[in-house]
Amino acid sequence: MKRRTGLAALLSACALGAVSTAWAASPTPPMDSRALEAKFDAQINPAEMGTWLKLLAAEPNHVGSVHDKTNAEWIAAQLKSWGWDARIETFDVLYPTPISESLDLVGGPGAPFKAMLTEPPVPGDQATYTKDALPAYVAFQGDGDVTAPLVYANYGMPDDYLALERMGISVKGKIVITRYGGGWRGLKPLLAQMHGAAGAIIYSDPKDDGYATDDVYPKGPARPPHGFQRGSVADMPIYPGDPLTPGVGSTKGAKRIDRKDALTILKIPCLPISYADAQVLLASLDGPVAPAGWRGSLPITYHVGTGGAGGGQVHLAVKSDWSQKTLYDVIGTLKGSEAPNEWIVRGNHHDGWVMGASDPLSGQVALLAEAKAFGVLAKSGWKPKRTIVYTSWDGEEPMLLGSTEWAETHGDELKAKAVVYINSDSNGRGFLRAEGSHAFQHFVNQVTADVKDPETNVSVRDRLRASLTVRAAEPGANEQARTAGKIAGDPAKDLPIAALGSGSDYSAFLQHLGLPSLDFGYGGEGESGGVYHSLYDDYQHHSTFVDPGFVYDAVLAKTVGRAVMRLADTDLPVQRYGDFADTVSGYLEEVKKLADTTRDAARAQAKLLGSNAYELAADPTQPHRPPTPLTASPPMNFAALDAAVARLKASSAAFDTALAARGEGLSKAQRAKLNAVVRPLDQSLLRPEGLPGRPWYMNMVYAPGRFTGYGAKTLPGVREAIEERRFDDAQKYVGITGQALSAYAGELDKATAIVNGN
Amino acid sequence: MKRRTGLAALLSACALGAVSTAWAASPTPPMDSRALEAKFDAQINPAEMGTWLKLLAAEPNHVGSVHDKTNAEWIAAQLKSWGWDARIETFDVLYPTPISESLDLVGGPGAPFKAMLTEPPVPGDQATYTKDALPAYVAFQGDGDVTAPLVYANYGMPDDYLALERMGISVKGKIVITRYGGGWRGLKPLLAQMHGAAGAIIYSDPKDDGYATDDVYPKGPARPPHGFQRGSVADMPIYPGDPLTPGVGSTKGAKRIDRKDALTILKIPCLPISYADAQVLLASLDGPVAPAGWRGSLPITYHVGTGGAGGGQVHLAVKSDWSQKTLYDVIGTLKGSEAPNEWIVRGNHHDGWVMGASDPLSGQVALLAEAKAFGVLAKSGWKPKRTIVYTSWDGEEPMLLGSTEWAETHGDELKAKAVVYINSDSNGRGFLRAEGSHAFQHFVNQVTADVKDPETNVSVRDRLRASLTVRAAEPGANEQARTAGKIAGDPAKDLPIAALGSGSDYSAFLQHLGLPSLDFGYGGEGESGGVYHSLYDDYQHHSTFVDPGFVYDAVLAKTVGRAVMRLADTDLPVQRYGDFADTVSGYLEEVKKLADTTRDAARAQAKLLGSNAYELAADPTQPHRPPTPLTASPPMNFAALDAAVARLKASSAAFDTALAARGEGLSKAQRAKLNAVVRPLDQSLLRPEGLPGRPWYMNMVYAPGRFTGYGAKTLPGVREAIEERRFDDAQKYVGITGQALSAYAGELDKATAIVNGN
Repeated sequence: MKRRTGLAALLSACALGAVSTAWAASPTPPMDSRALEAKFDAQINPAEMGTWLKLLAAEPNHVGSVHDKTNAEWIAAQLKSWGWDARIETFDVLYPTPISESLDLVGGPGAPFKAMLTEPPVPGDQATYTKDALPAYVAFQGDGDVTAPLVYANYGMPDDYLALERMGISVKGKIVITRYGGGWRGLKPLLAQMHGAAGAIIYSDPKDDGYATDDVYPKGPARPPHGFQRGSVADMPIYPGDPLTPGVGSTKGAKRIDRKDALTILKIPCLPISYADAQVLLASLDGPVAPAGWRGSLPITYHVGTGGAGGGQVHLAVKSDWSQKTLYDVIGTLKGSEAPNEWIVRGNHHDGWVMGASDPLSGQVALLAEAKAFGVLAKSGWKPKRTIVYTSWDGEEPMLLGSTEWAETHGDELKAKAVVYINSDSNGRGFLRAEGSHAFQHFVNQVTADVKDPETNVSVRDRLRASLTVRAAEPGANEQARTAGKIAGDPAKDLPIAALGSGSDYSAFLQHLGLPSLDFGYGGEGESGGVYHSLYDDYQHHSTFVDPGFVYDAVLAKTVGRAVMRLADTDLPVQRYGDFADTVSGYLEEVKKLADTTRDAARAQAKLLGSNAYELAADPTQPHRPPTPLTASPPMNFAALDAAVARLKASSAAFDTALAARGEGLSKAQRAKLNAVVRPLDQSLLRPEGLPGRPWYMNMVYAPGRFTGYGAKTLPGVREAIEERRFDDAQKYVGITGQALSAYAGELDKATAIVNGN
Repeated sequence: MKRRTGLAALLSACALGAVSTAWAASPTPPMDSRALEAKFDAQINPAEMGTWLKLLAAEPNHVGSVHDKTNAEWIAAQLKSWGWDARIETFDVLYPTPISESLDLVGGPGAPFKAMLTEPPVPGDQATYTKDALPAYVAFQGDGDVTAPLVYANYGMPDDYLALERMGISVKGKIVITRYGGGWRGLKPLLAQMHGAAGAIIYSDPKDDGYATDDVYPKGPARPPHGFQRGSVADMPIYPGDPLTPGVGSTKGAKRIDRKDALTILKIPCLPISYADAQVLLASLDGPVAPAGWRGSLPITYHVGTGGAGGGQVHLAVKSDWSQKTLYDVIGTLKGSEAPNEWIVRGNHHDGWVMGASDPLSGQVALLAEAKAFGVLAKSGWKPKRTIVYTSWDGEEPMLLGSTEWAETHGDELKAKAVVYINSDSNGRGFLRAEGSHAFQHFVNQVTADVKDPETNVSVRDRLRASLTVRAAEPGANEQARTAGKIAGDPAKDLPIAALGSGSDYSAFLQHLGLPSLDFGYGGEGESGGVYHSLYDDYQHHSTFVDPGFVYDAVLAKTVGRAVMRLADTDLPVQRYGDFADTVSGYLEEVKKLADTTRDAARAQAKLLGSNAYELAADPTQPHRPPTPLTASPPMNFAALDAAVARLKASSAAFDTALAARGEGLSKAQRAKLNAVVRPLDQSLLRPEGLPGRPWYMNMVYAPGRFTGYGAKTLPGVREAIEERRFDDAQKYVGITGQALSAYAGELDKATAIVNGN
C-alpha cells in the first residue's frame, strides 16, 4: 500500500540508522544452510509467478469484490496443495463503498465543468476495459454535499497551512484542493478539516507522478491524464483497523462502537481526482500566485485562491454505503519440528484498489513462491525447527484491516509465540529496501549479502551499497545522501536499516503488540509510481514497466524466504542488540538537537516579530501577515533518557559479547531458556498508556508520525511532543520512554545471565 | 542587460561579503551634506521620469535603429539644457543584424513544423504593434545553414555535458537545444560548439520565467507563449566590446583584426525561441527521459534525445549583415570646482533590445533625474569639488560595446583621473541590490542608510536587512540564506556587498582599467523577469508591473545621486580598506576549501571507479557510462597568498586606524597628496599578463567567470584554475595574485605614511 519510488525508496534504507562494524568479522550466515538455500532458490520460478500474478490481477479485487474472495480461496487452495495447513479467517468490518459522488465547478472561470471521476480504458490493454473498478473514491471520508469556494493548499501539510496563514487566507468553510505527495494522503483532508474546511479534493499533479516524471501509460509507466489515486483517508495515526473495534478483533461477536464515535473516520467529504480534472479547477482560482514550492507541472499559473466569489466555486457531494463487509485473511502454517510454539510470521496483503498488480500482488506472488518452495523442501525431508506462519491479508488498502484485526484477535498468542513478523508489499525492479527493528540490522545484512542481484551479479546488498556511494558523489547530493554514502562507502560496515512507520501490515505487530518486524522490497528502476492505486496498475503495466520477467519479484522471494528459513532454524538468537542501542542513541541525539532548534526557532521568531522584520520584508501589494508567535520552549531535562540509553548500551554490549563468546557452547536447554527470554524482549518497549492522544500505539521507539502518517517517528512520545510544542508531554515521555528502554535493558540482562550460565 | 529577479537578486547583496563592525560607530555621512541631499531629493520627480521613459521607450532602440540615435541626441540635449557640458561620442563597431533566419522541424514526431521567430502584438498594448522589432536573434552567433538531429542539454552548462556523457549521448554534429537560466546565455552555444555541435537553440522555459512563475503578459508580468529572449552570445569572458578591436577603442582609424580571427564570435548558428515553439521541438525527442533537474514546466515528458534518426530533425539557418554600425555614447560633464581632474564617473546604457523600458531605460531615467537635479543644484550655487561625468552608453546589449570602447579609448585619462565608476541598469520595485569594490562597502552602507524605502518608510538598507533576516528564518532556507541572515541580524554590522562579475557597463572600468566600481539597483517585487529582452519589455509593462508610479526608479536616483554627491565633495577618502582585506581573506579561505574539495572529489571518484560502483549503481536498461576520471589534484602551496593577505590585512588596519585618528587634522595639501595615492590604488590589482587565456581581464580579485559569464569569480586566476583542474595555472596564479595584493598593500602603506605625516 505504501508507495515508494526512486531515490526516496533507496535512501530510506540508509536514513537514521546506526553503523555496525562486525559484518566483516562474521561473514557466514548464522547457520550452515547454504545447500538448503540453494535448493530453495531453485524452486523460485519467475514465469510461474507471472502466471499467478496474471490470474490474481485479472479482475478488480478490492474489499467486497467477488474477485477478492476468489483470490483468497485460490491462495488457500494453493497453500494446501503445497502441503501447508491453510485456512481462511474472516472478519466483518466497517468498509464504506461509494453510492454516489460528484464534483462540479459551478462558478468562476471555466464553470460549469463536471469532473470525470472514472478512469478511461487504454487501447491495447484489455484489462482496463473492466466495468467493476471503484470510481474516484477515498475510503473513510465523511459523506456530505457542499458548495463552497475553492482554495489551493499545495500538499496540504502543516507547513502549507502556516504559509496560508502568512498569506492571510483562511480555508474555513471552503473546499480545499491539495496535491498528492509531501506526506500521507489521509492527513490532507484531516488537516483541511482541522482548519475548518467544508470539503477536500486531492489530485495527482503531473509533476509528482505524471508526464513530468516519464511518458504516460501505455507509452511509459507514468500516470495518464485521467488516472487518479484511490486510497484510505482513515485517521490511521490514531489507530489502524476497523474504526468500530479499536484494539480488539472485529470478530462476529465483538463489541462495536457507534460509527459517529469512531475517531478515525473523516467528517468532511473528500474525493481524489485526475490532473485532467484538476487543471480546470486550479485554473479557476484567483488570489496570489502560489509560492514557488507549490507549483506543479500543469501548463497554468498556479494561484492560491482568495476563497471569495471571484474564483472557482465547487460543488462536492459523496454518499457511501456504510455496511459491514467481510475480510478474507488466508493463514497457512508449516509446523515446527522442534519448537512448534515459536512462530516466524510472514505476510503480504492480497487486496488491491483495482487490479493491484504491483500493489500488492507483486509481493503476494513472492510470498506464494516462498510457500511453494517450502512445501517442496518439506516434502523432500526438511522440517523447519520453528513454526512458519504465512499470512495473506485482506483489506490492507482501506486501513490495514485484515492484519490489524487478526493481530488484535490473536494478540496474546502472538505475544507468547511470535519471534518476528516479516512483511512485503509492492515490489519492482531495482534496489533493495529493508526496514525494521534494529536488533535485526546485522541479520538483514547477512541475508542480503547472500542474495544475488540479477542485473549486476553482485549481492543485492553490495548493489545498494554501490548506489548509495555513487549518489553521495553526484553533484547536488544533499546531507542525507552524503551521510548515507559515507557509511555505505566502508565495506567493513553493515548498511543501516531504516525504522518502520506505517503504510503496510507490520504496524499492529510492531507498534501494538511489540513484536520485532521487518519489511523487504525492491524498486527504484523503471517505474514512476504513476499508476499507484489506479486502474492502470495491472498485469500489462507491471510486466512491461515495473518488473519485466518478474525477475525482482523472484529476488524478493529469495530474500524473504532466506530470512524465514534462517530464523526458523537458528538455535541462537540472530539479534545484535548493540545495533539497536546505537540506533536509539542516535535518535536521542536527534531529539536533543530538535529541542535546541525548536528553542532557537522560537527565539529567532520573537526577535523578528520584535523588530517588525516580517512586515518590512513583505510585499505590501500582496496579502501578508506575520506568523503566529511560537510558544516559548522551556529547558528540557533529558537525564532519564540519557541514563536509560547508557544502560541499554551497556546491557547490549554485555549480551552481544557474551553470546559471541559463549553462545555456541550453550546446551540445548540453555538455548531454549535463552530464546524464551529473547523472543518477547521487544514487548518491553510497549507502555500501557501508549502515545499521547493515540493509546493504540504503545511502542515507545517506533511509530508512524501523527502528522507524517507513513513516515516513521522514532522515540515518538518525546520527538513529536517537541515538534508540536507540547513541552509538558515531551518531558513526561522522556521519563516514560526511559522506563521502556530500561525495562528492555533489564530483560537483556536476564538473557545475558543465561548465556553466562548464571 | 543583466537579469536579476527575486531572491537571487536579494541574496547577491549578501553573498561572500565580509562583515564590518564600525557602522554603529560612525553614524553620520562623511560630509555634512544632509541639507544639500534633501534639496537634491526634492528635485527627483517620478512623474517626469515616467514621461521620459515613455518617450525613450516609444520605439525599438537597439544599436543601428533610428530611435537609438534619436534617444542619444535627446539625452545629450537634456543634459545641455540642465547646464551640463554634454556631447555625443561615436564609435564604429562590428554589429551583425539578421538578414534571414529560419528554424524548422523537418523530421521526427511533429514534423513538419516552422518556428514563428517573431513576437505577436498584445491587444491593449499599442507599442507591441511595432514593425521594427528585431526578430528572434542573438548577436555574434555564427552564420550557418545546418540540418541535424536535435539533443536537449538542459541549461547547457558544464555539468549538463558531464551528465550527457554519463548517458552516453554525444552532441557532435547535432543541434543542441538548451533552456535559458543556470548560467549566462553566451556560454550555452559556446559550450555546445566546444562539444562539437553544429548549431544551438536557446528557449525560455515557462518554469523559469513563463506561466509557472506568474500570469503571463498582459494579465501578469510573465513571459507569454510566443515571447523570446534576445541577447548577445559573444564570448564576453574572453573580452567584451567590439570583437575586432580587443583592448583598444574602435575609433575611426583604429586597427581592426579580421572577423575570422575574432575569438569572441561564435562559429555555429544560434537562435533564441519561445516556449510555444520549443514545445514542438522538445516533444519530438526520443531517448532517455530527462533527469529530474532538467525538466521544465511544459506539459510534456522531457526527453534528452538520442541524436539519432528516430527523434526530431531540425533545420537551422541564420544569415547576418556583418557591417559596422555606429554607437552613440552620450558624455556629460559637470566640472569640479576644486579638483577638476578627479572624476566621479556614473553610467547607464540607453540601448535596448526592443523598447527596453525596464532594461535599460528604468535606470536611464534615474540617471537623467540625477543629472537634472545636479543641474538645479549647480544653478542655485552648489558646485561639486570633483568633476562629475555622466555617461549614457550605447551598445551595451550586444556586448558592453559603448562603455568598453570608451573606456579603452580614454584608458590613460581614466586611470589618471577617475575615483570610481558607478553603474546602474534595469530597475524595479523592491529591495536594494548593491555590489562592487569592497573598500566601498561601508560607504554603500552609509549611503543606503540615508535613503528611505517608499513602501515601508525605513531606510532601504534596513528593509534589505529585515528581508535577509526573515528569509533566513523561513523553512527550507539554504546555507547561503542562513549565513546572510545571521550577518544581517546584527544591526551593528554593515551589510556585505557582493563582488561584481559582468553583465553591465562596469566591466571595462573594474576589470580592465582597475577602477573601483559600484553597481546599484532595486527589484525583487512584482516582476517575474518574463519580458526580459523581449518586445513586451515596454512602457505599459514597466509601469504596470515592474515599477508602478516610477517610485523605485526615483529611489535609485536618490541612492546613486547621494553616492555621487558625497564622493564628489568628500575631502577624505571614504574607503575602508579593512572591509576589502577581510573580504579577500574570506575569498582565500573559500579557494583553499575548494582545493580540498577538488582533491577529495578526485579521490572519491577514483574509489568509485575502482570498485565498479558506477556500473553497479546504473540502470542497465538505460544508456550509461562511468564518468571520465578526474585529474588527480596535487597538493597546493598557498604560502604566497597567505603572506600577501596577511600583509594586506595589516596595511589596511594601519590605514583605517590612521585615517580615523588623524584624517580630520590633515591639511589641504596633505589631503590632496593622500587622494593622489588612494585614487589609483585599485590599479595595483591589475597584472599585465591578465587571466589565463583572457589577458584583457587584468584584475586579480574580480572577474566574470569563464564558465559562469555574468557570475563573479573572485581571486579568479587561482579559483578558476582549480575548478578547471589546471593545477599548474592555479599554483602560478597564487604567486601572481599574491604580487597584486602585496602591491596593493604597498600603496596603502604609502597612503598611511601620508596620513601619519611621514
